[in-house]
Amino acid sequence: MQTQPSMLGRWLARKLRSAVGDVPIRFVLWDGTETSVPGIAPVATVRIKRQSGVAKFLVDPELWFGDGYTQGWIEVEGDLVSTLTTLYQPLGVQPFTRRASGLLAEWITWKQRNSPDGSRRNIHHHYDLNADFFRLWLDSQLVYTGAYFPSPDSSLEDAQVAKMDHVCRKVLLHSGERVVEAGSGWGALALHMARRYGAIVRAFNISHEQVTYARARARREGLDGQVEFIEDDYRNISGKFDVFVSVGMLEHVGRSQYSDLAGVIHRCLDQDGRGLLHFIGRNCSRPLSSWIRKRIFPGAHVPTLREAMEIFEAWDFSVLDAENLRQHYARTLTDWLSRYEDSIERVTGMFGPEFARMWRLYIAGSAAAFRAGSLQLFQITFACSANNALPWTRDHIYLADRAPRRGSPWKAAMP
Amino acid sequence: MQTQPSMLGRWLARKLRSAVGDVPIRFVLWDGTETSVPGIAPVATVRIKRQSGVAKFLVDPELWFGDGYTQGWIEVEGDLVSTLTTLYQPLGVQPFTRRASGLLAEWITWKQRNSPDGSRRNIHHHYDLNADFFRLWLDSQLVYTGAYFPSPDSSLEDAQVAKMDHVCRKVLLHSGERVVEAGSGWGALALHMARRYGAIVRAFNISHEQVTYARARARREGLDGQVEFIEDDYRNISGKFDVFVSVGMLEHVGRSQYSDLAGVIHRCLDQDGRGLLHFIGRNCSRPLSSWIRKRIFPGAHVPTLREAMEIFEAWDFSVLDAENLRQHYARTLTDWLSRYEDSIERVTGMFGPEFARMWRLYIAGSAAAFRAGSLQLFQITFACSANNALPWTRDHIYLADRAPRRGSPWKAAMP
Repeated sequence: MQTQPSMLGRWLARKLRSAVGDVPIRFVLWDGTETSVPGIAPVATVRIKRQSGVAKFLVDPELWFGDGYTQGWIEVEGDLVSTLTTLYQPLGVQPFTRRASGLLAEWITWKQRNSPDGSRRNIHHHYDLNADFFRLWLDSQLVYTGAYFPSPDSSLEDAQVAKMDHVCRKVLLHSGERVVEAGSGWGALALHMARRYGAIVRAFNISHEQVTYARARARREGLDGQVEFIEDDYRNISGKFDVFVSVGMLEHVGRSQYSDLAGVIHRCLDQDGRGLLHFIGRNCSRPLSSWIRKRIFPGAHVPTLREAMEIFEAWDFSVLDAENLRQHYARTLTDWLSRYEDSIERVTGMFGPEFARMWRLYIAGSAAAFRAGSLQLFQITFACSANNALPWTRDHIYLADRAPRRGSPWKAAMP
Repeated sequence: MQTQPSMLGRWLARKLRSAVGDVPIRFVLWDGTETSVPGIAPVATVRIKRQSGVAKFLVDPELWFGDGYTQGWIEVEGDLVSTLTTLYQPLGVQPFTRRASGLLAEWITWKQRNSPDGSRRNIHHHYDLNADFFRLWLDSQLVYTGAYFPSPDSSLEDAQVAKMDHVCRKVLLHSGERVVEAGSGWGALALHMARRYGAIVRAFNISHEQVTYARARARREGLDGQVEFIEDDYRNISGKFDVFVSVGMLEHVGRSQYSDLAGVIHRCLDQDGRGLLHFIGRNCSRPLSSWIRKRIFPGAHVPTLREAMEIFEAWDFSVLDAENLRQHYARTLTDWLSRYEDSIERVTGMFGPEFARMWRLYIAGSAAAFRAGSLQLFQITFACSANNALPWTRDHIYLADRAPRRGSPWKAAMP
């Protein structure tokens, strides 16, 4: 490796700076060439230790920043989340890489398309890693979606329980009601609905590892009469239900399958049915970073609200409530990252150093994206259009004593 | 007028029945021919007292039901809102009138397009009727948008105040903040924001009558130093503000002008700015009834959430909160209708019997549409994408004592 600044190094450093713009990050290249923004203290130093790496980074920064960091020829000195928050904003909109990444994005979408088989492969890639790994850095109940922090000093454990309650309150879950859950992770929400609200739940998931884990948990808790975990695709949901919930699955459905999902919801909800979708979204339409789609979440798409509305419009569903919990997901990810860092040696022992760096970057990068506002977290509550048996206000979410009960006077109050 | 059932009458009655389907309404035609649904007690009787009227009704039921009722050759015996709730659902989707009304809808859209001059004509048609007329049936503050009923037994007066507070809480209005309001009616919200929250408000409206009325009110209350009512189009809003609000104007903006509106919001909000749009919407995209657009609200369009999202996506705004208050608007309209009926003789004295019937039908029909779910009422709170100085939860809307103040710890809690 060269250690003397070279002409090539100086030229590439200029290109690099013009690509990332005036972000307060110092870059140091393989030959020692540096680029900073004069007069601004850098928040971090990014070292690109391979000559070929700089060129790769310039061609597709999203992809090669990720792979370079994973492979160890990109290093970050400074707080990783702050660095990524600073860096991701301009990278996403670099015009000179837009066309190439547009083409690449389309190719990836096609290759990772969510046919029933494709979905199975995509989900297997991420969620079939063993539960021991996720237990190192998730909460004790293994809830792998954004939490809800009732106050800034809530713990992650409490915030995950609060999130599940928030969901149950939003859909006004009553004892004895039939719930179908699409995408159920390790089973925390389905079990919570059964345990705390007396619901009867059928939960669908195509991750074999997760379903196996969730079933054991249901048996251990004596809830296996009330909660059924089914290893099958959401497209195969059948039966009639009072409530449809899906927390953190829409990201994996894929745009072309929204009408399939809409059809499933329509066919499985009764006239007085209601539901909730909880998903990562965006303000403006843009594919996920090519690195995330290649290495972390194959087949994933993070929709805008406009895109998500296609699901509800298709069958005349009424959107009742949409809430953006972006800041809560930023906080959740920060908590995950801190636990992950505490367990980095065990992760390295399990899967090796490249994997450990790759997942650190994914968790830190997600925290950065929520903090910077390039990702949002939406919860949408909806009901069938003709459903007039709905509470008038959202008081029941916030004032537990005002929660409407079955046959409550609120229902009769419709003019 | 014939009084013996005729062959033509029987043929038209069959056509009429096949057009409206199995709705439990008895129709009696000019010649005494009747059509009911066997075995179902009718909720009302609709009399079409002119031969030519039946044919017109079959060609464009929305338009001619309205004009026939206005002109007195259609009569309804039974509760008007229930009749319309029953009748409007199938009428909206009659395939045999769909193509013709599609063409008519496009023609009306073009004719009533919302250029600055067009908007002025459209708004003049409805809102420049004198305030004495609206005072007969609105609340004492003349709030001409859906109210918010904290409980089903709230009065209309209280519910309108609660609605204004709901809006102010949602945007977290602080004393001394600069608000711009697009479409300000007779000034109630702007004055409320100044009086109760200490805001400095610039309110835009192109209804000359309303602006004149609102200015007098501001002077009478001694709030004219704090609230400025400007007789101008929203497109001419200039300056920088902390908060953008628009309650009941989006319906009059017109689809082709959404990008104009988005540009105005973008240009007038500071980085920590936020805003709220309150508007009548739909679950599925469809023009307003041709009668409403011809006689009541020229140039109006009632968007789906998907359509409305174009406004926020255009400039990377984050949607923070969307709430559907459909049932509240149904209730508001029921209250308006009841006051209107109490004043029907004074309305007739002011504008004649045709006008009195026309506006009765419009108010009752709107109540029916909200009740049946063919209209929705959305409140959307949004903020600039980079705004991290936002409350974490919606507690402040429901738990007054938890409202974040300026520089509150909530702001510092962002990870």
